[in-house]
Amino acid sequence: MTEINNRDRAVFEAGIKLGALYHQFVGTPINTDMLNGLERIIEESIGVQPFVRSISVIIDTNMVKEKQNPEFGYCELEGRMLHVSLQVLYKNIIVQAEMFYDKEKDYPLMSVKKIEEM
Amino acid sequence: MTEINNRDRAVFEAGIKLGALYHQFVGTPINTDMLNGLERIIEESIGVQPFVRSISVIIDTNMVKEKQNPEFGYCELEGRMLHVSLQVLYKNIIVQAEMFYDKEKDYPLMSVKKIEEM
Amino acid sequence: MTEINNRDRAVFEAGIKLGALYHQFVGTPINTDMLNGLERIIEESIGVQPFVRSISVIIDTNMVKEKQNPEFGYCELEGRMLHVSLQVLYKNIIVQAEMFYDKEKDYPLMSVKKIEEM
Amino acid sequence: MTEINNRDRAVFEAGIKLGALYHQFVGTPINTDMLNGLERIIEESIGVQPFVRSISVIIDTNMVKEKQNPEFGYCELEGRMLHVSLQVLYKNIIVQAEMFYDKEKDYPLMSVKKIEEM
Repeated sequence: MTEINNRDRAVFEAGIKLGALYHQFVGTPINTDMLNGLERIIEESIGVQPFVRSISVIIDTNMVKEKQNPEFGYCELEGRMLHVSLQVLYKNIIVQAEMFYDKEKDYPLMSVKKIEEM
Repeated sequence: MTEINNRDRAVFEAGIKLGALYHQFVGTPINTDMLNGLERIIEESIGVQPFVRSISVIIDTNMVKEKQNPEFGYCELEGRMLHVSLQVLYKNIIVQAEMFYDKEKDYPLMSVKKIEEM
Repeated sequence: MTEINNRDRAVFEAGIKLGALYHQFVGTPINTDMLNGLERIIEESIGVQPFVRSISVIIDTNMVKEKQNPEFGYCELEGRMLHVSLQVLYKNIIVQAEMFYDKEKDYPLMSVKKIEEM
Repeated sequence: MTEINNRDRAVFEAGIKLGALYHQFVGTPINTDMLNGLERIIEESIGVQPFVRSISVIIDTNMVKEKQNPEFGYCELEGRMLHVSLQVLYKNIIVQAEMFYDKEKDYPLMSVKKIEEM
């Protein structure tokens, strides 16, 4: 057993934010016209939480087009439509984390990309 | 037992939309700066669904201010912060429905306000 | 314009409950072992809300099996996996409503099935 | 900048799970009778996800009693009602993490409690 340090806390916070984003916004009714606005709001919503340094959200327009119900003209936001890039700053530690759709595994993978000391 | 008519279907759709809005967006991390953007996105998201003629969403800024955590500067969207006014059009029937916070009952009440034939 | 009556209110409540159920529980991580338990909890959760007389929830085991990620052994609850049958009682009016997956439209349809006066 | 290691990955996964749990289940309509069942289902739902070794969820009965609407006899699950204890196992690393309500900060705090190598 070892002491919990700032790096652990920073990485933990990055995980919290991606898990929260996913389960808050997946299921939102969408069409292609509103993707830009929704991307910005998700960024703002996650960005107001503690330790978020920056965040970028992209929703895959082609997937939305394909999933839009032909009769009703909309679909729901799915995890695999999301590409999220997130920076957490905790004390002097910056963590870069990401969520993107892994086509081979058919799974929205979340991962830590980079850890830096300021 | 009686036949289900267009009025029933219109009223039913209005109920669906308000229930959906509530449980999709309550819990969203917010601060006062992003309320305007979030209101518009909720309107768009509910508006892409079938039979929605118009929708207006207002989030109570004062409640958000009061609920914002002093240390972390944000809170979560709660049902009682929402004032929603919705028009559903099904065939020739317009239903006006509403969600607003009933302070006395301490409850976010949803109700049908008006039903019109076009 | 016409007066809002008990039938309208009953039908409206049925819509609210189905919309709420959908957007609260869709996205829940599941595997086939826990479907029974989750069905009961969704029934209880919707059942504690006003005017719900009875509710039955069935999650499509075969769809879950097909969607379970082969590497990780789970998937998420989707709207099309849900078959819900709901009775609302408002004053003297009973409304029977339903959500089921319409394969042809590839859409989880919600509809009013029956309205009765007690 | 340093290499991402198993400890980072384990801690990151713990964060994901707590963020996911929170935003999936907060908002669920509840009364005191169904808390036990809901606790078990949340445990199962988070437990089917990768790398979860064990999880224990307790919902604060007294808070639920206080928040239950007197007229309607139910309330919604809130973050501050949740006490969650979670173990993640990634490769040879066990992370113990927790969510509990910090009364002083009026905030549902998530934290890493312990990191062990097996």
